[in-house]
Amino acid sequence: MEEIKQKYIYDYPHPAVATDCVIFGFDGEQLQVLLIERGIEPFMGCWAFPGGFLRMDESADECAQRELREETGLKVEHIEQFHSFSAVGRDPRERVISIAYFALVKIAEVKGGDDARRAQWFNIEDVPQLAFDHDLILRKALVCLKEKIHFEPIGFDLLPEIFKMSELQKLYEAILEVKFDRRNFYKKMNALEILIPIEERNPNAASRNPIKYRFNKVKYYELKRKGFRLEF
Amino acid sequence: MEEIKQKYIYDYPHPAVATDCVIFGFDGEQLQVLLIERGIEPFMGCWAFPGGFLRMDESADECAQRELREETGLKVEHIEQFHSFSAVGRDPRERVISIAYFALVKIAEVKGGDDARRAQWFNIEDVPQLAFDHDLILRKALVCLKEKIHFEPIGFDLLPEIFKMSELQKLYEAILEVKFDRRNFYKKMNALEILIPIEERNPNAASRNPIKYRFNKVKYYELKRKGFRLEF
Repeated sequence: MEEIKQKYIYDYPHPAVATDCVIFGFDGEQLQVLLIERGIEPFMGCWAFPGGFLRMDESADECAQRELREETGLKVEHIEQFHSFSAVGRDPRERVISIAYFALVKIAEVKGGDDARRAQWFNIEDVPQLAFDHDLILRKALVCLKEKIHFEPIGFDLLPEIFKMSELQKLYEAILEVKFDRRNFYKKMNALEILIPIEERNPNAASRNPIKYRFNKVKYYELKRKGFRLEF
Repeated sequence: MEEIKQKYIYDYPHPAVATDCVIFGFDGEQLQVLLIERGIEPFMGCWAFPGGFLRMDESADECAQRELREETGLKVEHIEQFHSFSAVGRDPRERVISIAYFALVKIAEVKGGDDARRAQWFNIEDVPQLAFDHDLILRKALVCLKEKIHFEPIGFDLLPEIFKMSELQKLYEAILEVKFDRRNFYKKMNALEILIPIEERNPNAASRNPIKYRFNKVKYYELKRKGFRLEF
């Protein structure tokens, strides 16, 4: 018996709408990005961002979170839209508009979901050529991440709960693609008053600086809400 | 004879995709926004942003520029996407995703196009309740404009070719919703090196400050390309 398939009919042509999720992580040294190996055509075997088609009963934000969960097992509280991609030929199947999102996560939180066998972190410097226009999406996401770091504290989502100043510095260096003077960076960060020193320093060490920190969550989110401008 | 209307058939439901354009101007005192009075249902008689449905052979950027031209006569070289709006019930006709854009223009450039009888500038403080979710779109656009002013010089698109420092200050004050000290503002702006003084000062005036300026286009676009961070 032939399956009866419902059809959807419109008076004028409609594009399909999808979401794509650029998920950034940090391994203590370099910026990482989460990719999925495509198991179907087009671009079968290529790496791409997690994502998929919008359902009629969900917003784009909900779609991005659902697709991310289904494809990588990752549940994010907040995912941020940064740009929609609409070049006419960007998908060989049909006209597809992609609303792209990004989120910053701790790498340890990615456990893998139903379709997640093929999810993998890539060092940002080692990302292979991606499916569709996802190379363009990645470039745009990196520009947005760089702009964002000047307005908001961002380490909280990417670093482990307790971290060294050198790790925070490496994170900022990885995102901004610059090198900072250690003491200047330390001063700038301390001035924000979002770091709480943890007393775990080696009693034999000569330095009096505390060597590990955690974020002051109240101050951190206050600063994130109000916005600020960080000058380097 | 009945008109034969082509139908477009898909295996799964597709949303419609539209663009909306938030066009900001400046009248020398306050920020202005360009609105269209809707001539059809839904929201007939309500004010809304210029915009309309995406054609299959154009990108969202092209759609935004075309709709703006058709509805207001305004041709903009650059229009910037800032967010896509996708709440499920945002349009009573069908599911419509709107990709929203903004541009900054000189008010004198709006001449009116084919459908432009109903285009009108509104003082930002006097904007009536808008059609669809356009109040939300306006709020988001204003937040983006405020963030943008910290990264890019923006007066060039909004001011007449020759202007006074006080006009530039009023523009920044209107966008940022703050008041600046006149001398501090003057210093900050001079330090950017994008202003060229025009020798038109009153010979009887005591002050030696030139009273009118124009932008140094080369420096202006260099700064815009490189980006900068303006601290107030």
